[in-house]
Amino acid sequence: MSKYHPLSEAEAIEIASSIQEVFPTGEPLVSREIGDGNLNLVFHIMQPATGRSVIVKQALPYAKVVGESWPLSLDRARIEAEALLKQGELAPGLVPAVYKTDAELALTVMEDLSDHVIMRRGLIEGGTYPAFAEHLSDFLANTLFFTSDLGMNQQDKKKTLAGFINPDLCKITEDLIFDDPYRDADTNSIEDHIRDAAEAIWRDETLHLEVALLREKFLTHAQALLHGDLHTGSIFVTPESTKVIDPEFAYFGPMGFDIGAPIANLLLHFASQEHWSADEAARRDRRAYLLETIRELWTGFDRKFRKLWDEKGVDRVARAKGYQDDYMRRLLQDTVGFAGAKALRRVYGLAHVADIDTITDAAARERAQRLALAIARNLILRHRQAESIEDVIRIAEAAANGQ
Amino acid sequence: MSKYHPLSEAEAIEIASSIQEVFPTGEPLVSREIGDGNLNLVFHIMQPATGRSVIVKQALPYAKVVGESWPLSLDRARIEAEALLKQGELAPGLVPAVYKTDAELALTVMEDLSDHVIMRRGLIEGGTYPAFAEHLSDFLANTLFFTSDLGMNQQDKKKTLAGFINPDLCKITEDLIFDDPYRDADTNSIEDHIRDAAEAIWRDETLHLEVALLREKFLTHAQALLHGDLHTGSIFVTPESTKVIDPEFAYFGPMGFDIGAPIANLLLHFASQEHWSADEAARRDRRAYLLETIRELWTGFDRKFRKLWDEKGVDRVARAKGYQDDYMRRLLQDTVGFAGAKALRRVYGLAHVADIDTITDAAARERAQRLALAIARNLILRHRQAESIEDVIRIAEAAANGQ
Repeated sequence: MSKYHPLSEAEAIEIASSIQEVFPTGEPLVSREIGDGNLNLVFHIMQPATGRSVIVKQALPYAKVVGESWPLSLDRARIEAEALLKQGELAPGLVPAVYKTDAELALTVMEDLSDHVIMRRGLIEGGTYPAFAEHLSDFLANTLFFTSDLGMNQQDKKKTLAGFINPDLCKITEDLIFDDPYRDADTNSIEDHIRDAAEAIWRDETLHLEVALLREKFLTHAQALLHGDLHTGSIFVTPESTKVIDPEFAYFGPMGFDIGAPIANLLLHFASQEHWSADEAARRDRRAYLLETIRELWTGFDRKFRKLWDEKGVDRVARAKGYQDDYMRRLLQDTVGFAGAKALRRVYGLAHVADIDTITDAAARERAQRLALAIARNLILRHRQAESIEDVIRIAEAAANGQ
Repeated sequence: MSKYHPLSEAEAIEIASSIQEVFPTGEPLVSREIGDGNLNLVFHIMQPATGRSVIVKQALPYAKVVGESWPLSLDRARIEAEALLKQGELAPGLVPAVYKTDAELALTVMEDLSDHVIMRRGLIEGGTYPAFAEHLSDFLANTLFFTSDLGMNQQDKKKTLAGFINPDLCKITEDLIFDDPYRDADTNSIEDHIRDAAEAIWRDETLHLEVALLREKFLTHAQALLHGDLHTGSIFVTPESTKVIDPEFAYFGPMGFDIGAPIANLLLHFASQEHWSADEAARRDRRAYLLETIRELWTGFDRKFRKLWDEKGVDRVARAKGYQDDYMRRLLQDTVGFAGAKALRRVYGLAHVADIDTITDAAARERAQRLALAIARNLILRHRQAESIEDVIRIAEAAANGQ
């Protein structure tokens, strides 16, 4: 790793200028660093003469969180680049194009998606994304099926898995999602007005058992190559386009973790609708849209995944009668449980979501937080009994109606 | 791998002579090749002047089975050596001492266990091994606990796992245990008199679903570092000593696969007791001994594993109330299912067991085969409902009583 050093803007420009397919002419480039500086440098490199642009993303050897630096392997940049390439191959058009990677410099040069908006921000601004469920269910069905033992040569899968061992980033998930929110951990960030709710969760032994089971799956169930961090902040959208970014948490884990992530974040946004002070009809409409998106996401995934299984399955044994139905039911149950775990920690764990945190009225914010916790807790508690995505929708509706 | 070539006896002697801890003096050594030549060369190297000896085991780059050669990675020798070292560290005295390894030559120089007998042969000759259940439950509890997320740093586990990716040998298991016996495969070796029983299994859709679930666990459940082939032919015994050998199938998989293997082989031996033509009391006594050994093996494992969990557990979340009981129940269920799958394929799959095949009376052999199939099938079918090791014992007793 001797070649590694954080890039200057001039160096980022020099690297970008070598991308002939974007910058075939020699006009000058300009750079703007747009990362948050916590984990990565992100340079937006543009050619003013043509309007063409690329992103140069470089990993930093630490993470700045909780006010201090954690060392973090640069190998995650290699993992991110390889995951992006694999996803681009399996789900064409649904991830940014990759122009260049450099494992030693821990960087990737990729398509600039400035014409898209980060989905979380788009939702907060009231956007609707009619193509999203169709696109994301495509992404999930294709990336998960073709990296699982159902859709991939099973010996090749084992060798591929060895290239996606990702201890540092898995550790972040293991701690921040499956451990810290369930105890009085320093990493938690709890608003005073919901401290009682956090304390109730720390005492909730029934909940802790379900979380231990989910954590065990995250630790041991090498089902498929996951994105690993598929919340609405990792998805760029327009009404017509969806692009999944930032797979630096990629590893072979339980599929439900990836499917549950967008559902969790749609439910957090559902909870955040408490911000409407007067217009009850608008809130109802918005919530109906969000629940319908969740329904379409799962049912689209379920339909597409089964079709791939029937048409592209590599495994004779997987055609055993009843196996596919059993598998899909377990997958739904995992999805429900992981959605709950991913939602819960966003209320008072280390990393919150802007959907809720940007509600300026404290009483409305507290209602949103309590609603999010109620939904998350019920998803976790009931995940092993889930039989249909309607169970998720009923849990959300019941909690919103104060039941 | 340019250095690799199959060793001559002279070369094996030269390598052995460098083991100072066994051969400190200079007297000459003699070699005898004792392998079956199918997978490995095995040289027994002795110093006649002192009576001291070692084993030099070298992997061959192919497997001779079904009359032809399969290419087989030499990397399995590195995996075997690393697994032996790891097991020796976690379960001292229960594996042969390793004196030298050479990954390029795919060889290991290890303790000679000629004063022991292979347990399968010992059982066939009527031996009893009163220390076996105690020793093997020690081996299982320690090797499985300390390579799982319960007993090992979870990030170190991920890195260790990358060194035990074992596609070639896993493929053998995936095909010969979880696929071929359930269809009319060329690899099966079926005596005419039980062809009807094999055909019934090929039509048994309920059984196929359970096998698909077990195979999925074998493919995806990276729970702990397994031996991977822990039948009674991989265990050297005396009445006072137990040594587990040949972990070339080692990989991170479901613990129940390792615990189920010796149980399957004890049950195959149980079935083989049909060879007694007259002495019904002797048969009953022998069977009672075998079932008691199975009971002690599981209960010893269960007790020791829980004790390690309570005293040496590394994971806060794993102390959630009810989690350990839930985990151990699932572990028993896996054990029962894998025991069934490991037993079934030994009746008419590619590799049989001498316990049954050496019964010269065809009618008695057929009774043993049908009994083994009945036990195996019931273990597979009922594994997800198992609550106690007594369920296994009841299945064996009922089948032996023709129920």
